Amino acid sequence: MKRPFLACTRCEKEFPLERAHPRCPDCNEPLEVVYPRLKKSAIPPGGTLLERYQAFFPFASIHPEISLGEGNTPLLESSATASELGVRKLYFKIETQNPTWSFKDRGTVAGLEQALSSGFRKIGTVSTGNMAASVAAYGARARMDTYVLVSSDLPEEKIGPIAIYHPHLVLVEGDYGGLYFKSLEIGERFGISFINSDVPFRVEGSKTIAYEICEQLKFKPPDYVVVPVSAGGNIRGILKGFEEFYGVGLIDRMPKMVVSQASGCSPITTAFEEGRDTVERVPDPHTIAHAIENPFPPSGNQVLRKLKECGGTAVKVTDEEILGAQARMAREGIFGQPAAAVPLAAVKKLLAQGYLNPTDSVVCIVTGGGLKYTAALVHHHFDVKKVGIDKIEEAL
Amino acid sequence: MKRPFLACTRCEKEFPLERAHPRCPDCNEPLEVVYPRLKKSAIPPGGTLLERYQAFFPFASIHPEISLGEGNTPLLESSATASELGVRKLYFKIETQNPTWSFKDRGTVAGLEQALSSGFRKIGTVSTGNMAASVAAYGARARMDTYVLVSSDLPEEKIGPIAIYHPHLVLVEGDYGGLYFKSLEIGERFGISFINSDVPFRVEGSKTIAYEICEQLKFKPPDYVVVPVSAGGNIRGILKGFEEFYGVGLIDRMPKMVVSQASGCSPITTAFEEGRDTVERVPDPHTIAHAIENPFPPSGNQVLRKLKECGGTAVKVTDEEILGAQARMAREGIFGQPAAAVPLAAVKKLLAQGYLNPTDSVVCIVTGGGLKYTAALVHHHFDVKKVGIDKIEEAL
Repeated sequence: MKRPFLACTRCEKEFPLERAHPRCPDCNEPLEVVYPRLKKSAIPPGGTLLERYQAFFPFASIHPEISLGEGNTPLLESSATASELGVRKLYFKIETQNPTWSFKDRGTVAGLEQALSSGFRKIGTVSTGNMAASVAAYGARARMDTYVLVSSDLPEEKIGPIAIYHPHLVLVEGDYGGLYFKSLEIGERFGISFINSDVPFRVEGSKTIAYEICEQLKFKPPDYVVVPVSAGGNIRGILKGFEEFYGVGLIDRMPKMVVSQASGCSPITTAFEEGRDTVERVPDPHTIAHAIENPFPPSGNQVLRKLKECGGTAVKVTDEEILGAQARMAREGIFGQPAAAVPLAAVKKLLAQGYLNPTDSVVCIVTGGGLKYTAALVHHHFDVKKVGIDKIEEAL
Repeated sequence: MKRPFLACTRCEKEFPLERAHPRCPDCNEPLEVVYPRLKKSAIPPGGTLLERYQAFFPFASIHPEISLGEGNTPLLESSATASELGVRKLYFKIETQNPTWSFKDRGTVAGLEQALSSGFRKIGTVSTGNMAASVAAYGARARMDTYVLVSSDLPEEKIGPIAIYHPHLVLVEGDYGGLYFKSLEIGERFGISFINSDVPFRVEGSKTIAYEICEQLKFKPPDYVVVPVSAGGNIRGILKGFEEFYGVGLIDRMPKMVVSQASGCSPITTAFEEGRDTVERVPDPHTIAHAIENPFPPSGNQVLRKLKECGGTAVKVTDEEILGAQARMAREGIFGQPAAAVPLAAVKKLLAQGYLNPTDSVVCIVTGGGLKYTAALVHHHFDVKKVGIDKIEEAL
């Protein structure tokens, strides 16, 4: 009976689950967890995210005490926006209700569980935003020594919400791209498990988004799932989740994935549009959707391979379209950070292009909360009245 | 068979559920919903908050489409802080994972459901913070005309996270205290249901916090529940929830409630300490915990009556103690706004005073998320290193 193992997403070379380095030594492509004997299993109610889906993870035991209550996020149907845009069904998966208010918590808890089961007492990450806060929080919860390496040009306002969790927070001067490789060296030397964006267990965490969508839609998946794509791990995970449920017979059809990126940083969409197999580094990324401003996504090539294999598409939207979608979602009561509004902007564009049809059902992944980046709100026009207390009636 | 009705919390005079004015015309005290025939009921899994607990609400039907996924928040046990402080069990109820990242969403959805069942098409609120964002979000979700009245001295940074939901947002110049009474006038004249802090259905929403704690602790309630207290509605609701579950036999003992306030604005704690029956207005409130800076709480007298009737206590803590508790909670991975850290500071104080014992179990209510008020983070000292990329090893 073959145990789960890691395999290169490109050449399929196999490695043990405990391998520390996240990429293939031959291809430099990301690895992923392969389950040779995944079976259809009942999903017990209650419990932590990893307990609920333990049958779909390789962990011999789960540490519920490291959970911060991640996952189990709402799937909200929006009939008003659906009929306005002209699509049959539109849902928003609200990842903003995670413990640190982004989807990253799912991958962090999976990566942390793997670090624990491999005997690590130290974890770390290289990130500028959501992932840094998430790893800092979970490291604190699990009482691990936690190392967060960020670029020294991180804006002051972003430091507090990471530092409050009391990690070893290091602002690093120099090439931010090089910092990723440096972190792998440091991890090996100091025994730190770096839960970076491309580690296989982040993908494992993200697959639970698909599991939950399946459960919430009574195992009738939507036609399309639209994901804001930065490093590429989250969309890989979501697709893997649907593939696994399909593989064991929990669902009988696969949704198609839509990569949504910002025009100012769209390495995967650009490669897809140009018919290339590999992403190229974006020289000068700039978008209001900072959380997905990754100029050279570590899972970019794998995302392109999966789009070719499974169908789906990639699209890019302007900052203006993103802000419009952010405002539109808030009119449904959903306040996402700009990156989290990219899918809705993409849906609008794909309907206009005729890629999506009025008979389709679509799920948009709302990846992170609007309070993460309130500076973006200056770009909105708000109609705020100011009156004396005895003139309120006239203002209404 | 007597239907649920409203009754004055002081004189017990009865009113129909549909009464718009939230207070007793004789006593000027808040009303509450009384259920003459509440029965022990199974709690169905899944569904929205109001669907799950429909047997404990007076609603003939529930509108699940107005839900934003409120409630069902984690209860995290913290054994590290428990043993550090010297208490048997310590839990945090994480209200920061609500749709607008505070407990207010529970009361808003209950108030909105009641407004709908009374035929209203317009809702509103008078608030400076969490409640304004919550009502704006739910009003948007339900496609109601939504009126949010705030003081004109609201800091700019707080406006965006309310305005993004696109309510009729009115900054009002003049006496903020008077604005509450003005809102009742306006509500009557324009047919707006003002879901302010003292409406009976906010208390109904808050009682679900107690219901969930009971379920999460397998119907063995803790010895104490510590709540940050501002207007007083949330602690009233939580106590009511325990009383109702006790009344129908779902739990067989009652926890004691602890009012926790900030020294700079502690009208209820001060009255309690002085043995008074009524709160007095705090002339010059000032605390880092802005979310509970209510100088004249509308449910203050009722909270005092309930403390006298049911036991429990009231305590106040300094801003320094609040910030210390905020930092301590973050070391468990929990990032609350300053007001949400007041209970932990109170636990520490009550242990030092000998009110709490090492054998006690305690639940702290973490009322709102840390990203609500990042300006408070400047008061923390963070140890952040800054190094060149080739010097990282030396910094670790």
